[in-house]
Amino acid sequence: MKATSIILASRPAATPGPEHFRMETAEMPALRDNQVMLRVLFLSLDPYMRGRMSAAKSYADPVPVGGVMEGETVCEVIQSQSPSFKGGEIVRAMTGWRSHAVMDAAKVRHVDTHGAPASTALGVLGMPGFTAYGGMKVIGQPKSGETVVVAAASGPVGSLVGQIAKLAGARAVGIAGGKDKCAYVKDELGFDRVIDHRSTSFASELAEACPGGVDVYFENVGGHVWDGVFPLLNTYARVPVCGLIAQYNGPVDSGQDRLPATMSAILRKSLLIRGFINTEFLEHHYGAFQNEIGTLVASGRIKYKEDIVDGLESAPKAFIDMLSGGNFGKLLVSVGR
Amino acid sequence: MKATSIILASRPAATPGPEHFRMETAEMPALRDNQVMLRVLFLSLDPYMRGRMSAAKSYADPVPVGGVMEGETVCEVIQSQSPSFKGGEIVRAMTGWRSHAVMDAAKVRHVDTHGAPASTALGVLGMPGFTAYGGMKVIGQPKSGETVVVAAASGPVGSLVGQIAKLAGARAVGIAGGKDKCAYVKDELGFDRVIDHRSTSFASELAEACPGGVDVYFENVGGHVWDGVFPLLNTYARVPVCGLIAQYNGPVDSGQDRLPATMSAILRKSLLIRGFINTEFLEHHYGAFQNEIGTLVASGRIKYKEDIVDGLESAPKAFIDMLSGGNFGKLLVSVGR
Repeated sequence: MKATSIILASRPAATPGPEHFRMETAEMPALRDNQVMLRVLFLSLDPYMRGRMSAAKSYADPVPVGGVMEGETVCEVIQSQSPSFKGGEIVRAMTGWRSHAVMDAAKVRHVDTHGAPASTALGVLGMPGFTAYGGMKVIGQPKSGETVVVAAASGPVGSLVGQIAKLAGARAVGIAGGKDKCAYVKDELGFDRVIDHRSTSFASELAEACPGGVDVYFENVGGHVWDGVFPLLNTYARVPVCGLIAQYNGPVDSGQDRLPATMSAILRKSLLIRGFINTEFLEHHYGAFQNEIGTLVASGRIKYKEDIVDGLESAPKAFIDMLSGGNFGKLLVSVGR
Repeated sequence: MKATSIILASRPAATPGPEHFRMETAEMPALRDNQVMLRVLFLSLDPYMRGRMSAAKSYADPVPVGGVMEGETVCEVIQSQSPSFKGGEIVRAMTGWRSHAVMDAAKVRHVDTHGAPASTALGVLGMPGFTAYGGMKVIGQPKSGETVVVAAASGPVGSLVGQIAKLAGARAVGIAGGKDKCAYVKDELGFDRVIDHRSTSFASELAEACPGGVDVYFENVGGHVWDGVFPLLNTYARVPVCGLIAQYNGPVDSGQDRLPATMSAILRKSLLIRGFINTEFLEHHYGAFQNEIGTLVASGRIKYKEDIVDGLESAPKAFIDMLSGGNFGKLLVSVGR
């Protein structure tokens, strides 16, 4: 039986293009004891994957050139040599960008979405959702009456950040790109305010939307959004840093050294800036996340949006577009048509 | 009865000079109910006072031009209209840079130094010591085997930071300026390593002194010390930010925008950067500080050094010198000769 994969063909110096990927088809290895064979249903595409394409040392090893692109998928078990899984079960695993995979059973997890579609295990009830939950629970800690700002507010992380803020009694101010996304954030997700980051008066609109300043800024973009939010931070504001998509394709030099003024504000306002990767919180918070957010998603109280593209061969282009905000909702590739 | 004060004559644009201060003598106000009259024994000179000389908004209001310079002192009560104090008692109060002061009794505190000299209530057992204690207890949280780096290591904050690190079983690496201070930090205070920040190979010496990286960097200087420490920070490193003396006389532009790379490292290494003012921790930690550190100072297990200059008229020059590292130990002015 053959499986198709997307390979990292070469490392991008700046913005990735189709030339940095290639497709390969190869015979599947034979199944051994305590392994399962999986047919991929959905592949999750996430900004962190841009980091894995670079050789630079980060919290995880880079994908080697010639290696399969890393990624999490929701799959159907098609063969099992493990007592823990049987054919037809729906699971999630880090198979990478593949149509089929043979995995050690120890690295495969059953999917439990409290009745929501299995694809949510890659979005609002998966790692993006848990990133929002862990960052807010442990670092952001929004309180009633406070103001929480988050960018990419229509995306899988930002949309949950804002909804968690609202559940805590805080004001949620979202930042998104374009009319449709802004309307969705305000009208569907129920944020108090939304600002279009493409507006030429972005900074002043944001300031006007946050008359009491900003108590939590959930940082997932960097760039000019950071510049707009930073002066608005209140004393004791918390800044969970989970992503910097604006600078993933190369650092952005603003033309002046912003570090001294940044450090000065950190000191004057007793700010907390804290980078994190969601895996840090798995041990102590994942169970509560699954129960709390799973229940709220299943009951429809927490909303989510998926942006599903069709076919593994569409993954590179969809991923490249996502890095400049081309997706609308959690980006997934439907692999097993 | 007359009292002498040091007045903020004008605001410095960059480095303060003697011209920004002037001395005034004026009649003392009459003592009213629930007030005490104090003779100042020791005035504390601290880097934060540079901030109060600027008009810029900070965590505390600036000293008005024509107003008395702000500062904490240890005093003798010479008259009392309060049941809480009697003549001859030793107290501390925010009198400012004065020879004598009339204060509301509610703003005066008895001094308890567990038998150590009263001047320590302005240093190792006062606000500088509590800054070290609170920053390490709440934010730094050094663990056995970790490496803690602190600059101005012979000063009142840095010297206690390193000694607290040692008590926790961590390695203490100090940074100081000049041979005498470096020798004191290593030989008297018992730091594991000390680096002279004036060395032309400062960054490489620091890296060599921290072969396992840096887990806690207690930031009180900024400037090129930050540049040397930052690349050495380990995953999950904590950076309590209590001062930035290198940039108090004006922001230092390194010639390139260091912010994107800084944010990127915060994300990649899950760093914690947290500004703080010691007053934030008074309610929950001051009692424990007085007991723990007071006992260790009184028994000689924690060491400290004072740099005492003579006469209120010497305060401006001593303060100006301190901003460029001219003091050696906690800088105090002996006022009541």
